[in-house]
Amino acid sequence: MPELRRDPTTGKWVIIATERALRPTDFKSEEEVLKGPENCPFCVGHESMTPPEITAIREDGSFPNGPGWDVRVVPNKFPALKVEGELNRHGKGIYDVMNGIGAHEVIIESGDHYKSLESLPLDQVEKVIWMFRERMLDLRKDVRLKYILVFKNKGRRAGASLEHPHCQLIATPVLPDVVKLELDMALRYYQYKERCIYCDIVQQELEEKERLIDENEKFISIVPFAAAVPFEIMILPKEHISDFGQIKANEIIKLAEILQNSLKMLEKAVPNVPYNFYIHTSPLDNLNISYYHFHIHIVPRLTQLAGFEWGSGFYINPMIPEQAAQFLRNAKEEKQA
Amino acid sequence: MPELRRDPTTGKWVIIATERALRPTDFKSEEEVLKGPENCPFCVGHESMTPPEITAIREDGSFPNGPGWDVRVVPNKFPALKVEGELNRHGKGIYDVMNGIGAHEVIIESGDHYKSLESLPLDQVEKVIWMFRERMLDLRKDVRLKYILVFKNKGRRAGASLEHPHCQLIATPVLPDVVKLELDMALRYYQYKERCIYCDIVQQELEEKERLIDENEKFISIVPFAAAVPFEIMILPKEHISDFGQIKANEIIKLAEILQNSLKMLEKAVPNVPYNFYIHTSPLDNLNISYYHFHIHIVPRLTQLAGFEWGSGFYINPMIPEQAAQFLRNAKEEKQA
Repeated sequence: MPELRRDPTTGKWVIIATERALRPTDFKSEEEVLKGPENCPFCVGHESMTPPEITAIREDGSFPNGPGWDVRVVPNKFPALKVEGELNRHGKGIYDVMNGIGAHEVIIESGDHYKSLESLPLDQVEKVIWMFRERMLDLRKDVRLKYILVFKNKGRRAGASLEHPHCQLIATPVLPDVVKLELDMALRYYQYKERCIYCDIVQQELEEKERLIDENEKFISIVPFAAAVPFEIMILPKEHISDFGQIKANEIIKLAEILQNSLKMLEKAVPNVPYNFYIHTSPLDNLNISYYHFHIHIVPRLTQLAGFEWGSGFYINPMIPEQAAQFLRNAKEEKQA
Repeated sequence: MPELRRDPTTGKWVIIATERALRPTDFKSEEEVLKGPENCPFCVGHESMTPPEITAIREDGSFPNGPGWDVRVVPNKFPALKVEGELNRHGKGIYDVMNGIGAHEVIIESGDHYKSLESLPLDQVEKVIWMFRERMLDLRKDVRLKYILVFKNKGRRAGASLEHPHCQLIATPVLPDVVKLELDMALRYYQYKERCIYCDIVQQELEEKERLIDENEKFISIVPFAAAVPFEIMILPKEHISDFGQIKANEIIKLAEILQNSLKMLEKAVPNVPYNFYIHTSPLDNLNISYYHFHIHIVPRLTQLAGFEWGSGFYINPMIPEQAAQFLRNAKEEKQA
């Protein structure tokens, strides 16, 4: 019998399709043929191929837009939103329009064309997370902005157009829809329970353990109860922290560790897996809130959205979340063995 | 300057990315190598390869599960939801679960393996639409069901797994999220304006004409003002009809005509385009409503959703809707010339 599960953080139902259930080993992802570093604008020594850098973590004595950097942030060459100008929100009959004000930046994870967050040294992953925090703290000074979304696309099927490992951020002049939904649902839960729903998820997952794939002093990593796609993963801080920008040094170390471990397990479970991840944090006009809790979603892109998903908003997940978690945990043990 | 446009039927913002704008001719779609009719369960003469048929439009004297049919409806062999059983909605800690009760049917468009809605004779398209209506009217007798979504997946990138042209329907025990959002937004508009927002869209699009791609006595076909993807199309009845199940014979003729024309234009604009379409109609517990209006969304699948779209719910459309409409209209004229 197929099962309908509801994600308590969004209210969305997911169909766990037992009739078409796939085993974890049914998922294959083809290796992409890489073009290599030759004309790559993100490789060391090619700094002049990008727009001038916004900031970088650099060796002492090195200069902006030259080599000697560990993590480098540049404007997206084809930005979805632009910093200059006024919002100019206006109507056009029944329609609404505004200028595309915002920011669109690329965070280059390292100078190495072939090493990504799952394969870089752990201290390099920490530096990337520090940079997420630094850019969030800097951009929030701009009062036109309502939200900053940090995300990563890996592999062509996940929308990556450049192969050198990088993350991105887009700052938007309106609160994104998906975040607004999570905030609304979390507030409703808080008004009824006087507890943060994400804190309650952490507690239930630590008790039940069947969807838990990794844990350290500060964070847990789980396959969500109502995972929308095979091998979906969510990372949550154990303590209540709503604003990613306030994450502390000792937390960044632990976040780097659990993020890298989770991505390693995923890569081990499905080699060459294309995926997206993104950080959900509190909105800029309401940073410290007791009902919302920052978290990271990792979304492997192994299945194809079809007409039913577009038209209904329901997802059909052909993999039982507890089985996905078991398979990811096994991948970890094999790795350690 | 990029532009943000808001879809008044959902409240969602779309980024019209002028900086990365693509020309209509930039979209190419590869021809899929077809396996052909040999082992196809939907071809005439292969009726025994499907589960027993639910209904069919048949020649006099032909028998169920044999040849002699024009349109045939069968249960999906790997249903996302199943008809038998009770909902048994219950909690599991903070989570919600229910059994996957519903229906999942396949509507085979014709016996011809190679002809789809864009290439079938017009009276065959009418028969398919009659069948949508018949299945909706039959399934709504089941009080466990809250909604019936009719949809089509064409091409592998749009999620089609069998190549013989077919549509599907899934009946769900909860109101789909995407429909609920449209209903909520339409109600809010109605409460303020005392007018149906879809009626207002029809009027504005007929006046402005720049996004109109086809029109007949009963329907219009447009590229939506806040189209989320290149070449997105929406078909709306000119008169207010909330319930697709109440569509009349003379309207079905005109709907077949505009649906086929729209799909032809799309195929002409981007040969071999993968797409989804789906019908949005009023919910089963509230069929005749003055604030909601049935319509068809056609969503070509030429771009890839990436981390930003998943994490924010914003779409980035690299094609200006008015340019897409112009290109589709040109495709129509070429066709007629």
